Amino acid sequence: MRQALFAEFIGTAGLLSVVVGSGIMGERLADGNTAIALLANALATGFGLYVLISVFGPISGAHFNPAVSLVETVRGRLRPKVLPAYLIVQVTGAIAGVWLAHLMFDLPILQTSVHVRTGPGQFVSEIVATSGLILTIIGFTRHAPAQTGAAVGIFIAGAYWFTASTSFANPAVTTARALTDTFAGIRPVDVGPFLAAQLIGAAVALVVAALVGFNQGK
Amino acid sequence: MRQALFAEFIGTAGLLSVVVGSGIMGERLADGNTAIALLANALATGFGLYVLISVFGPISGAHFNPAVSLVETVRGRLRPKVLPAYLIVQVTGAIAGVWLAHLMFDLPILQTSVHVRTGPGQFVSEIVATSGLILTIIGFTRHAPAQTGAAVGIFIAGAYWFTASTSFANPAVTTARALTDTFAGIRPVDVGPFLAAQLIGAAVALVVAALVGFNQGK
Amino acid sequence: MRQALFAEFIGTAGLLSVVVGSGIMGERLADGNTAIALLANALATGFGLYVLISVFGPISGAHFNPAVSLVETVRGRLRPKVLPAYLIVQVTGAIAGVWLAHLMFDLPILQTSVHVRTGPGQFVSEIVATSGLILTIIGFTRHAPAQTGAAVGIFIAGAYWFTASTSFANPAVTTARALTDTFAGIRPVDVGPFLAAQLIGAAVALVVAALVGFNQGK
Amino acid sequence: MRQALFAEFIGTAGLLSVVVGSGIMGERLADGNTAIALLANALATGFGLYVLISVFGPISGAHFNPAVSLVETVRGRLRPKVLPAYLIVQVTGAIAGVWLAHLMFDLPILQTSVHVRTGPGQFVSEIVATSGLILTIIGFTRHAPAQTGAAVGIFIAGAYWFTASTSFANPAVTTARALTDTFAGIRPVDVGPFLAAQLIGAAVALVVAALVGFNQGK
Repeated sequence: MRQALFAEFIGTAGLLSVVVGSGIMGERLADGNTAIALLANALATGFGLYVLISVFGPISGAHFNPAVSLVETVRGRLRPKVLPAYLIVQVTGAIAGVWLAHLMFDLPILQTSVHVRTGPGQFVSEIVATSGLILTIIGFTRHAPAQTGAAVGIFIAGAYWFTASTSFANPAVTTARALTDTFAGIRPVDVGPFLAAQLIGAAVALVVAALVGFNQGK
Repeated sequence: MRQALFAEFIGTAGLLSVVVGSGIMGERLADGNTAIALLANALATGFGLYVLISVFGPISGAHFNPAVSLVETVRGRLRPKVLPAYLIVQVTGAIAGVWLAHLMFDLPILQTSVHVRTGPGQFVSEIVATSGLILTIIGFTRHAPAQTGAAVGIFIAGAYWFTASTSFANPAVTTARALTDTFAGIRPVDVGPFLAAQLIGAAVALVVAALVGFNQGK
Repeated sequence: MRQALFAEFIGTAGLLSVVVGSGIMGERLADGNTAIALLANALATGFGLYVLISVFGPISGAHFNPAVSLVETVRGRLRPKVLPAYLIVQVTGAIAGVWLAHLMFDLPILQTSVHVRTGPGQFVSEIVATSGLILTIIGFTRHAPAQTGAAVGIFIAGAYWFTASTSFANPAVTTARALTDTFAGIRPVDVGPFLAAQLIGAAVALVVAALVGFNQGK
Repeated sequence: MRQALFAEFIGTAGLLSVVVGSGIMGERLADGNTAIALLANALATGFGLYVLISVFGPISGAHFNPAVSLVETVRGRLRPKVLPAYLIVQVTGAIAGVWLAHLMFDLPILQTSVHVRTGPGQFVSEIVATSGLILTIIGFTRHAPAQTGAAVGIFIAGAYWFTASTSFANPAVTTARALTDTFAGIRPVDVGPFLAAQLIGAAVALVVAALVGFNQGK
């Protein structure tokens, strides 16, 4: 159990270092061409997710995401009494990861984002992103569990591009990204609606999964 | 059966949200550099196809494409009486996906494309794209079925670049993309020839498959 | 046998359509930024190789490359009396593929390249590229045969970037690319040295493979 | 044993040719847009690592990296008396690979870098990069050994972007890159701190692996 919580902490920290670090690098090098910065940011995030999930999956399930832990509890794959500890290490790990990225890029550790991310399109985008992520996880853990890490990385790399919000899809990630005033940041006041949309997205995914029959048999 | 049709609807909607959404994002960020926009568009589409086909494949076959459903009927892998329902949910799902993309990017829902896509090169391109797609599906379902989702995504991501039409290769996708006046759009008057070329491409694929011996034995 | 030759013809044609077609698309869209054009060209080529080799591998071995057929003959995996027919369909297929690319992009079918590719660096590059390709094939067919198609695609996509010649590594491809005056072209007079370097590269690969012990046991 | 050392030499040479060669190509083509150059450099390196590790892994373990050989000795997967020879062929192979890249691009063979890479951010970056690399290797060799080559390539391609140092993570690579005055170079005076950070990173990885329980059971 202690090992699982440590794995969730390290893994979520790693994820945020990847997301924020590659965003900083992209912004620095791309010289105003945001498309190239986002392309590098998306690929690095997808690559990181594949590695982190594959390495820590056998230890903790490698959720790195409160929405996923919630869904896994509903699916009976995580014990309810463990859930609070998972959420705590995910959020603290995420914040540690942001600070580590700042350290790597010689930036002030403590920051707050001023990046505006609001409006109905962003809200719908987070519902789509999170429901897509959860359906990816449910589908792959059911049909092709060995590919789940790769699939999550590939889904998120794509979703950076096809959603208007660049697909946060993760309450711990969203919260921690309020603490960086760089490419990946989000204004603290915009965090609340993102979290609400992510919870709605998780619920939508469970409904779709039931309608498609993913909860039947195996 | 109801589950299969629902899976085809959701999957085709997801595909179009990916194609149109990532096209919009690419166009917005790339600042006139169409190559970067198309690169992101192609990768996001390939990533989306891999995930969608792998998640919904075991439920419905994950065709998301009338040309594929037609070929699967000819190959005896889809019952003929199911075909019409498949086509209907694919086209309606595709349209729903375009509208969802507009919603995510705060754009008017109802649009019509003015993007001209015509001429002999485009016609030949769609024959090549569709025959290549069908051969990919026949080859992989025969030799390496577990990789079919990945192979289709990878084929289409490549075909965005090596065909002059950026490889629609799908009548439902083509029809729905007439309803978006964004990067991925196609003028309604150009849809007919694209569909004709796609049907010819499917027939070419069946001939090549027979000549190579894909219909023999297993 | 007729099926194998047909598969080699179609596969090599497909490969050249991918290489030349994506080169044209890259050049058209990239607006002078050759790096983006080459990136798209490299990825499309890698993607195409993975699909083509996986689809046609079980029929013909999916060489699409006289240097590979030669090595496979030496390794006892292709009967010597079949070799000449393989070479003929590879070269004619390659030329057909170039012409198909021209057709797709509304260009004159018959062209000759004026793209200068000469000098000692190019010569060394082709030795490195071809020996690397052959070692990739020998290594994967020995240790992980199911991944050979993916590995060849990934090797070539990388080799577009780390060799100065952008890694032709294939006498049929080299010959056919003399017949297109587009991004992927090569001046006819430069073809000879490329072929010589490719044969040397194949020989180097066989020596390295022997020194590493790839010809022992299994 | 002779075969293993030869494989380490060839593999490390190949790795450096990929890293330095694709850096030169990227810099030449990208016309000042460093982001595109680094994107191509990162993808080519990841592609090369996947192929090299998969091809030579069964012969020598395919470390190509003194930090990895050290860790594998600690883990009991490499005999201590073999370690010095491994380190020697890795460093000499790396240097040979840099020189081969210069040869391919018609550059003077002997060079020294003037590329400044210093400061606390770079130091922290190399600790993160190396510990991440080692954890990737420990995790995958434990849970999914067949994917280790792919995972290392994917990790490094991502780490080029999320670390400020572009992730050298390898003492032999670092030493050899001091000998090229191109995109991938590093000033000789900056090599020492990089090596120190890499050794710290390897130690950090072993601690994390123990805390997560990777050294238990199998």
